[in-house]
Amino acid sequence: MRIRKKSWEAEELSTNEHLVHEPEEYKGKWKEYFGNDNPIYAEIGCGKGRFIVQNAAENPDKNYIGIERQTTIMAIAARKASPEMKNIALIRGDAETLSELFAPEELSRIYLNFSDPWPKKRWAKRRLTHRHFLELYKELLNGDKEIFLKTDNTVFFESSLNEFCETGWRLSNISLDLHNSGYEGNVMTEYEERFVGLGQPIYRLEARWPKNQQ
Amino acid sequence: MRIRKKSWEAEELSTNEHLVHEPEEYKGKWKEYFGNDNPIYAEIGCGKGRFIVQNAAENPDKNYIGIERQTTIMAIAARKASPEMKNIALIRGDAETLSELFAPEELSRIYLNFSDPWPKKRWAKRRLTHRHFLELYKELLNGDKEIFLKTDNTVFFESSLNEFCETGWRLSNISLDLHNSGYEGNVMTEYEERFVGLGQPIYRLEARWPKNQQ
Repeated sequence: MRIRKKSWEAEELSTNEHLVHEPEEYKGKWKEYFGNDNPIYAEIGCGKGRFIVQNAAENPDKNYIGIERQTTIMAIAARKASPEMKNIALIRGDAETLSELFAPEELSRIYLNFSDPWPKKRWAKRRLTHRHFLELYKELLNGDKEIFLKTDNTVFFESSLNEFCETGWRLSNISLDLHNSGYEGNVMTEYEERFVGLGQPIYRLEARWPKNQQ
Repeated sequence: MRIRKKSWEAEELSTNEHLVHEPEEYKGKWKEYFGNDNPIYAEIGCGKGRFIVQNAAENPDKNYIGIERQTTIMAIAARKASPEMKNIALIRGDAETLSELFAPEELSRIYLNFSDPWPKKRWAKRRLTHRHFLELYKELLNGDKEIFLKTDNTVFFESSLNEFCETGWRLSNISLDLHNSGYEGNVMTEYEERFVGLGQPIYRLEARWPKNQQ
């Protein structure tokens, strides 16, 4: 998504208390950053931030880290989180930099919401559910090693289903039409709201790494 | 599918050499029926028979058993198989009667093509991919315990994905739009051709039981 630079973005990015400017310093120390032992959930590509900010507001017993590559969008997300929220951090970065940001088993859940679908076959390796990313997520996740995914893109969802299944992840709560599925507690992203408004189905799945597998 | 009774069906059913009139007698002895050790593939709900007849014609080193509940449809399927084909048998029956027809590990693959979707939630147990059927198929299958599924119905496909995944089957070659997926070697059913003609996407998956699981 291309977005016009905002006049206020530089100031927001330098003063917003949720933005972590040298996040690599917290690798392995995110519990210290948050000051508690609560589980840490990361959204890779948090966009304008509604999903992660609303989740953080509703779940004070969880910590949330939003990761976003684009500066302007990150500034928009940062504005959404009110200053008193203690359980949210925002980082400029992307999936490629995850291992610089987090130690093994430091995260309890990863959210992938409306990731870039990279729909052409020759781009498949760039999709955030390509098996080389799944391998990385597996290292960084603890416990059930949960990945929650939503997308409106058929090619991306199909490829995600295959990558998860073929590499041994266990899927559940697969939905081919989330908003007609009876699923409760869905927090919509900005992007999702637009697509649902157009009547397009949203796909969703939950992936976990089976305990008895290496 | 409701279909009008044919004037020729009684004769077809009594004289067609592919129809097995007392199939329970071959339980555990289908290799003897076919007179060889080739793998046996069964289609549960073979409808008008194009899929199974074409597969049998193209793969003389495999044996095919088509199972269909409705008499008239079975008669239409029976007509399609030419008398000289030695690798095809047709049985009147349904998923409920499978354990009377086959011994454990007697089948190498099960096809579920455009099964009745039973779309309402309260009908979920009747779907041919409900976990109690999957458990039965697992018993009857040998080797990789393959199940190949196609459907045009979103509710049925979503529920099938979840049933397979939650009960430990390993999925592969999942397609959310088979006819735009580059998948080769697809044999269309009569029903499929009609739906593809209307531009509707066809879903497909392959399920196998992992060797290291009980």
